[in-house]
Amino acid sequence: MTVLVFLDPAHDDGRIVDATQPQLMATDLGATRGDGLFESLLAVDGTPRKLDAHLRRLASSAAALDLSVPDADAWRRAISTGLREFAAAEPNRTTAAVKLLATRGVEGASQATAWVQVTPVPAATLAQREAGLRVLLLERGYDSTVAQRAPWLLIGAKTLSYAVNMAAVRYAKAHGADDVIFTSSDGKVLEGPTSTVLLAHDRDGQKTLVTPQLESGILPGTSQSALFDAAQEQGWELGYGPLEPHHLYEADAVWLISSIRLLAPVVSLDGQELRTSPALTTELSDLVERFV
Amino acid sequence: MTVLVFLDPAHDDGRIVDATQPQLMATDLGATRGDGLFESLLAVDGTPRKLDAHLRRLASSAAALDLSVPDADAWRRAISTGLREFAAAEPNRTTAAVKLLATRGVEGASQATAWVQVTPVPAATLAQREAGLRVLLLERGYDSTVAQRAPWLLIGAKTLSYAVNMAAVRYAKAHGADDVIFTSSDGKVLEGPTSTVLLAHDRDGQKTLVTPQLESGILPGTSQSALFDAAQEQGWELGYGPLEPHHLYEADAVWLISSIRLLAPVVSLDGQELRTSPALTTELSDLVERFV
Repeated sequence: MTVLVFLDPAHDDGRIVDATQPQLMATDLGATRGDGLFESLLAVDGTPRKLDAHLRRLASSAAALDLSVPDADAWRRAISTGLREFAAAEPNRTTAAVKLLATRGVEGASQATAWVQVTPVPAATLAQREAGLRVLLLERGYDSTVAQRAPWLLIGAKTLSYAVNMAAVRYAKAHGADDVIFTSSDGKVLEGPTSTVLLAHDRDGQKTLVTPQLESGILPGTSQSALFDAAQEQGWELGYGPLEPHHLYEADAVWLISSIRLLAPVVSLDGQELRTSPALTTELSDLVERFV
Repeated sequence: MTVLVFLDPAHDDGRIVDATQPQLMATDLGATRGDGLFESLLAVDGTPRKLDAHLRRLASSAAALDLSVPDADAWRRAISTGLREFAAAEPNRTTAAVKLLATRGVEGASQATAWVQVTPVPAATLAQREAGLRVLLLERGYDSTVAQRAPWLLIGAKTLSYAVNMAAVRYAKAHGADDVIFTSSDGKVLEGPTSTVLLAHDRDGQKTLVTPQLESGILPGTSQSALFDAAQEQGWELGYGPLEPHHLYEADAVWLISSIRLLAPVVSLDGQELRTSPALTTELSDLVERFV
């Protein structure tokens, strides 16, 4: 089932609503303009993972959008309410997908429309994690330097305007693949439509984990960041792009990492098989499983 | 007041709903992903203008999004219902802003969520048309050739993912301007966030109306297209870009044209005053007023 909790100044812990009924104004600028932000995170045994990092990124998206959103404590209370309600309705599920959403509200609204959505983790998501991903490289249209000089492009913000991300995934599926890695117009590896790119090298026992540099115009990945911290503690070296497609073909393993699907190996790129490493996937997945 | 009419197979002429109440599922992919399309058009004395052109563009956006939407006749009937209801509620208004919206619905939905919204034309919109627009040139991030090779970028589709367009207008307002003309990363003039760019030359009595070429990655403007037809009948020559900013500074007049605000003169560009021509604005506005 889906649990919805609206953030509402009149309800300290959020207002639980019936998710089977319409709850959003059709004139809300979230619906009519994609004007808002979101976060997706995983909860395990009723506890959200990496919540501080998600709330920090939410605040950063809100700043980019010049959108006034509820404070972190209001989100925390609404999430607790949602997870409690979800656990009561779905006592046998240990995990839940938690989505935080905030829109600019209807035209002229003084505050954001904000809500928390709790659902089961889709079976298809788990299946992709196990089976691995066939990925297409698709151009994102931007060069890797534009984010810094054009803040109105909202490149580091996680906005509700995801039509292009969704279209890219549809394009991949229509062409025999599962997911996408975007490239910049100057040939740099960026990110997935809903994930961060990781690659690893294992040379003479020294393992290195690499991700594209943030300055290339990508979303800061909360899972990538947490995994980097955890891997470093285990003796991994860390690296940051710029990366080009040949780095993906040359790596000992490539993954897409995100908060719900977690660490999913990329098994092919543009139809060409990539090296995979079940051992490295297991080692890193064990670290991901311990995120708090 | 706002009139909402949902397209609904069980209601031939659409289903009128209470616009003061929530009517949209909070899980609708229009709200959570900006995954859908829209059209905005003007109705005068209860009759929508350029309806065929808007319905054609809607169908083209739907194709780009691989979204199954109601057919043109269903839209026409719902629009009629909305305009009738609006006229009954607002008998003294001769104009109305009509918005057509369609989203992918909730996850797994077999058909789009589709509705028609009818509202008064905002006074601020009319005021801008009269006062003229101070415009900033802002980079759109794409080069002018990407649209043709990267259909997943949805560049010619009018999607609900308008966060960047809205952010660009906010950026303009925060910097002393009213609106934006986007440029490509290779320096070409593209379009406004919600309008098409026009410029005119009047040389020895021969008037020429020019707009950026569609192939540069812009939305096909229904108003630009109708005005080109009407102007040509009046003896104007027509021209299509590529345009660069210097063409705007050199023109005898520059306008942004769109379906609700209609023809609005650009009075300054990046703080530099542009030539304006009240005579040409009047001549072209008279043609725009006769659109059917």
